[in-house]
Amino acid sequence: MTGATRSEHDLLGDREVPADAYWGVHTLRATENFPITGTAISAYPHLIDALAAVKEAAALANEELGLLEPEKAAAIVAACREIRDGKLHDQFVVDVIQGGAGTSTNMNANEVIANRALELLGYAKGQYQHLHPNEDVNLGQSTNDVYPTAVKIATVFAVRGLLKAMAVLQDTFAGKAVEFRDVLKMGRTQLQDAVPMTLGQEFSAYAVMLDEDRSRLAEAVELIHEINLGATAIGTGLNAHAAYAESARRHLADITGLSLVTAANLVEATQDCGAFVQMSGVLKRIAVKLSKSCNDLRLLSSGPRAGLGEINLPPVQAGSSIMPGKVNPVIPEVVNQVAFEVIGNDVTITMAAEAGQLQLNAFEPIILHSLSESITHLRAACLTLAERCVAGITANTEVLRATVENSIGLVTALNPHIGYTAATDIAQEALASGRGVAELVLEKGLLPAEKLAALLRPEVLAGNGAPLA
Amino acid sequence: MTGATRSEHDLLGDREVPADAYWGVHTLRATENFPITGTAISAYPHLIDALAAVKEAAALANEELGLLEPEKAAAIVAACREIRDGKLHDQFVVDVIQGGAGTSTNMNANEVIANRALELLGYAKGQYQHLHPNEDVNLGQSTNDVYPTAVKIATVFAVRGLLKAMAVLQDTFAGKAVEFRDVLKMGRTQLQDAVPMTLGQEFSAYAVMLDEDRSRLAEAVELIHEINLGATAIGTGLNAHAAYAESARRHLADITGLSLVTAANLVEATQDCGAFVQMSGVLKRIAVKLSKSCNDLRLLSSGPRAGLGEINLPPVQAGSSIMPGKVNPVIPEVVNQVAFEVIGNDVTITMAAEAGQLQLNAFEPIILHSLSESITHLRAACLTLAERCVAGITANTEVLRATVENSIGLVTALNPHIGYTAATDIAQEALASGRGVAELVLEKGLLPAEKLAALLRPEVLAGNGAPLA
Amino acid sequence: MTGATRSEHDLLGDREVPADAYWGVHTLRATENFPITGTAISAYPHLIDALAAVKEAAALANEELGLLEPEKAAAIVAACREIRDGKLHDQFVVDVIQGGAGTSTNMNANEVIANRALELLGYAKGQYQHLHPNEDVNLGQSTNDVYPTAVKIATVFAVRGLLKAMAVLQDTFAGKAVEFRDVLKMGRTQLQDAVPMTLGQEFSAYAVMLDEDRSRLAEAVELIHEINLGATAIGTGLNAHAAYAESARRHLADITGLSLVTAANLVEATQDCGAFVQMSGVLKRIAVKLSKSCNDLRLLSSGPRAGLGEINLPPVQAGSSIMPGKVNPVIPEVVNQVAFEVIGNDVTITMAAEAGQLQLNAFEPIILHSLSESITHLRAACLTLAERCVAGITANTEVLRATVENSIGLVTALNPHIGYTAATDIAQEALASGRGVAELVLEKGLLPAEKLAALLRPEVLAGNGAPLA
Amino acid sequence: MTGATRSEHDLLGDREVPADAYWGVHTLRATENFPITGTAISAYPHLIDALAAVKEAAALANEELGLLEPEKAAAIVAACREIRDGKLHDQFVVDVIQGGAGTSTNMNANEVIANRALELLGYAKGQYQHLHPNEDVNLGQSTNDVYPTAVKIATVFAVRGLLKAMAVLQDTFAGKAVEFRDVLKMGRTQLQDAVPMTLGQEFSAYAVMLDEDRSRLAEAVELIHEINLGATAIGTGLNAHAAYAESARRHLADITGLSLVTAANLVEATQDCGAFVQMSGVLKRIAVKLSKSCNDLRLLSSGPRAGLGEINLPPVQAGSSIMPGKVNPVIPEVVNQVAFEVIGNDVTITMAAEAGQLQLNAFEPIILHSLSESITHLRAACLTLAERCVAGITANTEVLRATVENSIGLVTALNPHIGYTAATDIAQEALASGRGVAELVLEKGLLPAEKLAALLRPEVLAGNGAPLA
Repeated sequence: MTGATRSEHDLLGDREVPADAYWGVHTLRATENFPITGTAISAYPHLIDALAAVKEAAALANEELGLLEPEKAAAIVAACREIRDGKLHDQFVVDVIQGGAGTSTNMNANEVIANRALELLGYAKGQYQHLHPNEDVNLGQSTNDVYPTAVKIATVFAVRGLLKAMAVLQDTFAGKAVEFRDVLKMGRTQLQDAVPMTLGQEFSAYAVMLDEDRSRLAEAVELIHEINLGATAIGTGLNAHAAYAESARRHLADITGLSLVTAANLVEATQDCGAFVQMSGVLKRIAVKLSKSCNDLRLLSSGPRAGLGEINLPPVQAGSSIMPGKVNPVIPEVVNQVAFEVIGNDVTITMAAEAGQLQLNAFEPIILHSLSESITHLRAACLTLAERCVAGITANTEVLRATVENSIGLVTALNPHIGYTAATDIAQEALASGRGVAELVLEKGLLPAEKLAALLRPEVLAGNGAPLA
Repeated sequence: MTGATRSEHDLLGDREVPADAYWGVHTLRATENFPITGTAISAYPHLIDALAAVKEAAALANEELGLLEPEKAAAIVAACREIRDGKLHDQFVVDVIQGGAGTSTNMNANEVIANRALELLGYAKGQYQHLHPNEDVNLGQSTNDVYPTAVKIATVFAVRGLLKAMAVLQDTFAGKAVEFRDVLKMGRTQLQDAVPMTLGQEFSAYAVMLDEDRSRLAEAVELIHEINLGATAIGTGLNAHAAYAESARRHLADITGLSLVTAANLVEATQDCGAFVQMSGVLKRIAVKLSKSCNDLRLLSSGPRAGLGEINLPPVQAGSSIMPGKVNPVIPEVVNQVAFEVIGNDVTITMAAEAGQLQLNAFEPIILHSLSESITHLRAACLTLAERCVAGITANTEVLRATVENSIGLVTALNPHIGYTAATDIAQEALASGRGVAELVLEKGLLPAEKLAALLRPEVLAGNGAPLA
Repeated sequence: MTGATRSEHDLLGDREVPADAYWGVHTLRATENFPITGTAISAYPHLIDALAAVKEAAALANEELGLLEPEKAAAIVAACREIRDGKLHDQFVVDVIQGGAGTSTNMNANEVIANRALELLGYAKGQYQHLHPNEDVNLGQSTNDVYPTAVKIATVFAVRGLLKAMAVLQDTFAGKAVEFRDVLKMGRTQLQDAVPMTLGQEFSAYAVMLDEDRSRLAEAVELIHEINLGATAIGTGLNAHAAYAESARRHLADITGLSLVTAANLVEATQDCGAFVQMSGVLKRIAVKLSKSCNDLRLLSSGPRAGLGEINLPPVQAGSSIMPGKVNPVIPEVVNQVAFEVIGNDVTITMAAEAGQLQLNAFEPIILHSLSESITHLRAACLTLAERCVAGITANTEVLRATVENSIGLVTALNPHIGYTAATDIAQEALASGRGVAELVLEKGLLPAEKLAALLRPEVLAGNGAPLA
Repeated sequence: MTGATRSEHDLLGDREVPADAYWGVHTLRATENFPITGTAISAYPHLIDALAAVKEAAALANEELGLLEPEKAAAIVAACREIRDGKLHDQFVVDVIQGGAGTSTNMNANEVIANRALELLGYAKGQYQHLHPNEDVNLGQSTNDVYPTAVKIATVFAVRGLLKAMAVLQDTFAGKAVEFRDVLKMGRTQLQDAVPMTLGQEFSAYAVMLDEDRSRLAEAVELIHEINLGATAIGTGLNAHAAYAESARRHLADITGLSLVTAANLVEATQDCGAFVQMSGVLKRIAVKLSKSCNDLRLLSSGPRAGLGEINLPPVQAGSSIMPGKVNPVIPEVVNQVAFEVIGNDVTITMAAEAGQLQLNAFEPIILHSLSESITHLRAACLTLAERCVAGITANTEVLRATVENSIGLVTALNPHIGYTAATDIAQEALASGRGVAELVLEKGLLPAEKLAALLRPEVLAGNGAPLA
């Protein structure tokens, strides 16, 4: 810090802050106190925007209630809008992992907004006697209501991106389900041959899973529209005007376009992280099923010669530095890894939520960090999987049909006609001899040839299945 | 096995089964194959009942469709009703942790029901030519639809017990919130003194948390009413009559009184464990918040002399084998431990769900096991906490009021009147000198005495808070 | 409780205890306070034995130091030996999940031992004026040193059982490695065909993994030989004679045959659960690798016709209630589930360890519970896997060899001779045309036939591999 | 990419690469395939250095064995040394979360090294006919041996940094233990007052915990010195000269200064992630205990007026945006959050390790990512905690002593003299009446005043404790 500086003061004393920094002494100390990851909160643009939205809403509410002079309010609002337009994000410099329940993030916002507002009012940065980070920008607020409210708004917007990416992946799977609707194959349970189905049914299931998961995610995000703005420090609303909570909520809803509601019990809402745990749980659910789907894709495309070889994933890069021509399922593999990360993040979030004490949870920064990572990585994973893998999958139709015709599982369809016991004998003989089920049934005279042929038409066997999503 | 036996046969050959056993050769082999925990599935009475309900519904549907002779159907139905009346549960002997996607559990049920039905028809056990475990009891079914359907029904009933226990605990907390509505105390954030509140507000928050969690649990259990009966092996419905799924669902809804719906896509429903993951995620959410509440109770009751000493938990046993007179918060402690177990179980369930492959998840038995443990232990924990702890909590009212009057946090209320900066100076001086906030404000002439007294009335400070739930 | 009773007294008042119960009032209250699982601590025979061993050692030490009359000591010792001989285990009735840091377990032991000792001395149960559970049996002890010491001793003995079971499984894998040493097959990376190896090498790797894991487990169990007996309540040794810790340790080492050492810092040792976390971490490591091995076995044995079909697991039960002749890999599946349970238990143990506060961890009972479950279930899983699965595995030698001869991966061996780029072209052409690598190399004149044949001898390719363990 | 480009070719065709990029077509495709986190592998400088070390060692070994021309080897070695000197790190651009078992990372290294070596040899970038990324830089290697070897070396160096930071924290705690050696206080179990101790003993325990954990970490890092270089694709060593493994190991040991050993069974070593799971388990152990220590610090410093108020943490920033003068324990809080992250990462690593299949674990990139995060964040947390918190802690000596003198727990010391039963009565009366233990004992004539005074000297009570570390 060799350049020009200005002096700022807090309860610990005076410190020099770079003259051109919009952030101030509280932010400075926080950057020194939390040298953990090297990643600043500007890495969460949704959060920065949400903080600005909250501050803007608070200023408008305070002005409306006669608590903040109109010119100050106007300057704060203007500064917030600049931030929401993408400016000044580089001034949000505190570490993503930080102590203090988000106070440093809130103070970083208060300081940046105050200093930009001061400039807009014609003052120099740091002249807080004209507009103060705490007394004006933070008026009627506490970190304990501002921060969780901003985290929720940021999460809503991040989740929208994930929902869209999931829809893209769902549509891609559904498109393949239509493309493969007539491709017969053996279904498998416990990795053992079971009974016939179509490859279209198999891909349809992946699409349906995503559809269901989107519904669950939409429900979970609904819970996050409940905010505690107006709670101030512990939910008793100390220092906030009686009409403030509702006014701030209304302005914030207008600014963000979200149907925000104020929690009925603000004491509870201020200490509760349940909605984040629920959200993370749903993200974990999505991760589990995405991972399972990717495991299946890797399994079905195993080969090219010593594997199942049922489908082909599009090659996207050379697979090996030593084995020429090898192409690996790298896209599903990267999705698996994101899923493992999301599952681990859920444990982190769970522990952080459990560690809350009395009127506050001090560990919301790591909850935000883990949640944000899970959402944005899942979004990238869904899009990558859709575009770089699923969209280009082709089927080895002949291989697939042959496994059906050669299968022992066909005998299941004869249960109602020859009984489970006789069918078991046929299955065992087929397995031991390598012969076909139909051949053996005929040889033993268990069913007439015509009836047998009718029963064993694989299209019929698979056709009783589930419709496409 | 020294007593009389009967011989039974399966695809691996002949085996002697105890003559008086209702279970048969499949069950016998399963008990030999899975000597893992020593706990039999009879430990889950809800599951045994649910299996009987499914088998009864299937028999009625098959009879209705003309696929099962009425006398066989009647015998199966009668056997199932005996089981649902609590009989024969001791015949469900396979281990709770078992391979095979629940096949051994399903076969155990098929065998017990077949043998009891045979008796009711006047035959000896094992005379399967008259009524067969697979061909009659399991008609139109597969483990892969029967088992998850039964697990879901069992879970619905178990969750009802948990919901009731949570309501009891909620009511107990709410009762205390009323009792303590006028008890002033300091609220705390980050374990540091914050601003005043009432002990009633504190306890009300615990009640509200439970209320919210009950709503989330009720939503999660709703998802579990979607079943895949009729899917048979992989969801294609092979071997089930076209009208079977709907008929069986209708009978099962009648028998259980549940609003069951059949999944729209049975292939997806047969392989999907999403609803279990979601349920476990919500149980984890409940555990997290219960644990946090218990941490608070232990903290608030710390002492008796060197702790916070704000509340007293009722003594329920001597606390120490060495320290006379010591009484420990053993009830909250046991609830914490149940919470840790539930959180661990969620990881188990997550891994089991992720490990599903292709058309089936083979690991549903451990999902059932962990889920069942989480639900029943949480239920016991809620009731124990309500009855043996919360109901008897008393407040140290005088101690609590003194902390408010002595607190520095009162200065927060002066922010709007003297500004954050001046208030900070007062706070620092109070802390350094050990003097009171009001005294210092007056001494410095920052506010007139009357106004100050009005501002600092703790009842007013806390009174702006949230109403009771 | 309609039978005869005796009255006992504690700090909460008087209670009637069944006259024939060896346990007393503290145990009675604990059973009422912790109705969580319904499973009593008698489910851990190693723990009951270990508690008796600790009490015996303490009595001998106290006698040696002149603090306990010889006849009392003799009676206590005799009672403890009866318990270690398997008697009175049914008197250990408190729930496995309990609040209170193990105090109820310790008091259960104190009461059972006191009452049995009273009988041996010719008194009636409950006549504690002659020999007291706290003042004599618990003399110089606290739950806080007795309980963790007993848990450690119990764990050491339980782990011995696991180590033996792992050795059995290792030997079984190693035996198969020898049996399959000449069976050529394709190795796979990322589920794609890679380069040749032998099935013996594949199974040898499983044996080596177990060998390594046994070493890690042996190291972790070594850490558990450090005890804190003599610490009493918080590690300061209050109320214990200065020579007591060493004397008790010596007697306990004699009784158990274990090389126990007393922790250097008893304050630290009394609050620290690190050794349990480490133990659980190693159990998780074992679980992870067992699960991976079982995933492999299920994959390699997939089929019988539409899978990899490389090996055959011995059939141990019919696989399906609907699909005749189907045999599923139920033994590996049950091992997978145990692994998932162990991994979940590790999270439970982690949370319990993290939740310790100040001079004690109150949550050791759930640590014991989870650890005990993990160890005993893993032991059962290893033995079951060895005996019911691995020992009976057979190889489909011809299938395996064919995949090698047909493979594209052979081209890797030509890299040093024709270069990675040319080899890539050959691989791509082979894949596109379905032709063989050797054929194409010859056709293009890249290598003379003789040299090619020498390079591509699969035995040579695989033979440069790792030796058997 | 509007600037000058060069054309490169791989098995998928031709692509334009920026002319000034040292990376090539494989890296290009990887950056397109894995747009997950936006963080490049250059974020792991230890890994980049380790990759260069491995490539240097391989080149030297290949030269030694006559497989690589000396001038090529020299150029490769020179390029690697530049990288190890910190140059070209910005050329390592593939995403930290990537599919493909690390192939993209390995190819990124191969390409950067090849192009820099080409420059050193006087050629242009991309003129691979003179020196080829696969055929020369990767000679005798596979991702499957290079990548895990590099990850291990990087981890060893990262762990060294953590060990040092832990030692700093340990020393800081130990210094405080000396400083506080005479400060008497009440010990607490289960948050209830127990018996006296010194604050020095309390802090000493934190130092001892760190000392033990450092030993465990040192043991775990020892396991990571076992490498599989020479294994090539699957451990059979295909394409590597028989003497290569030993030669490369020797060179790598020289370059890194580490006592590296080659695994006895390379097939096993290539697929095994056990050492990473173990390492993560030990990091979790460290996290658990650090978190517990921070929980204690936050608890002991609670207040300033309504908390325990035993110690004071140095203020490092203003604690609240609304509550003037509030100072929060933000440093312990940030350490708690790092601990939660490490515990979550352990689950991620566990799942990734479990998901390995057959001859390889494809998910090592996420293992590296999570492990690297855990290690570097723990290191930062330890240093921050030491320097910004523990070093400045002060004790409220008078408050602490008063709690001892006023305590009921003193009565424990009288057990041996008046019996547990009488002591219980005294404790109960003291609690009910608010009177002191000594006063009551005297009043009842249970002990003479002099003896009582001698017994209750707190220094004596605490003095029997554990020595400082």
